[in-house]
Amino acid sequence: MLTKLSIKTTKRDEMIDITDEIRQFVKDVGVKDGIVMVYCPHTTAGITINENADPDVKHDMLMRLDEVYPWEHSKYRHMEGNSASHLKASTVGSSQSVIIFSGDLVLGQWQGIYFCEFDGPRKRNYFIKILKG
Amino acid sequence: MLTKLSIKTTKRDEMIDITDEIRQFVKDVGVKDGIVMVYCPHTTAGITINENADPDVKHDMLMRLDEVYPWEHSKYRHMEGNSASHLKASTVGSSQSVIIFSGDLVLGQWQGIYFCEFDGPRKRNYFIKILKG
Amino acid sequence: MLTKLSIKTTKRDEMIDITDEIRQFVKDVGVKDGIVMVYCPHTTAGITINENADPDVKHDMLMRLDEVYPWEHSKYRHMEGNSASHLKASTVGSSQSVIIFSGDLVLGQWQGIYFCEFDGPRKRNYFIKILKG
Repeated sequence: MLTKLSIKTTKRDEMIDITDEIRQFVKDVGVKDGIVMVYCPHTTAGITINENADPDVKHDMLMRLDEVYPWEHSKYRHMEGNSASHLKASTVGSSQSVIIFSGDLVLGQWQGIYFCEFDGPRKRNYFIKILKG
Repeated sequence: MLTKLSIKTTKRDEMIDITDEIRQFVKDVGVKDGIVMVYCPHTTAGITINENADPDVKHDMLMRLDEVYPWEHSKYRHMEGNSASHLKASTVGSSQSVIIFSGDLVLGQWQGIYFCEFDGPRKRNYFIKILKG
Repeated sequence: MLTKLSIKTTKRDEMIDITDEIRQFVKDVGVKDGIVMVYCPHTTAGITINENADPDVKHDMLMRLDEVYPWEHSKYRHMEGNSASHLKASTVGSSQSVIIFSGDLVLGQWQGIYFCEFDGPRKRNYFIKILKG
């Protein structure tokens, strides 16, 4: 009940809706009740749950996060130059968990699960783990 | 072992202590060991764990979050006008999990579980899910 | 499968790598599959997962978090004076969960699990809880 999926990001900052992939995995496995955890093994990317309707929400979130955690900063020391990405990753978090009930995800009407790229474009992975119960 | 509770918020930004509801649910169900997950199905609200004593902590947290993610911003595109709420929701997170041991929550002395409203007042819901083990 | 560990922090803001302690606990318990949850019972500290290689990443993260959530602010009301610590704690989160597979942690190559001190130096604790499955 652990799987690893690949994803290709196309921008430096990007929120990619992976809800369908998670839902399909849960249905394929056939688990009726429990939780599903979506885990990002990268330190400059993360997972969040947010609005699935208006794409402008993603724009505004990424735009403001980039102002709060700017790419350039006179006090940054990390030579790789992507400290902002690490800050954004810890802000949204490395993983999110969603309840499984009657074989489906318990998401709000406007909720989608997002892979958040903060230092792309890159080839990335994420894990899906189910706990029954 | 899944339940849905309703909550009525009274302000645009508000942290409501729901620790007693979570603790009571755990006791009612009678689970001795495991984790309890509290999940918010809304994209402009979230769940966090923070100080349960001085209400000024809530004031300061909501005040500063509103400065970091301001309501008005010349670069916001989302027509609904609540991009700040979405940013705050992803910052605190859609869910929190707490350990259950000997039939009770394992919380620090000063910790409470909060439903965080970031676009109220509204009628809201949250889910409580227990995993034994 | 619940344990409490102590940790001594040495600065006001500090990220301490606790990956080895978590990995060792998982191996000692001998669980092959499941998740391990690391929980911080304090409201001015938290847990995050981020880069384990260049220590400058920790420097940059703590430096910028301190600018985003400043120690001094004319509108803070909390008499204890550590509202910034509470904000940082809710931003990184009270807990993180990691997948266990074949008896080991499923972490990315550059990922470490960090205890985040935001109001030290202090003697602190954290809990490790395993759910099999």
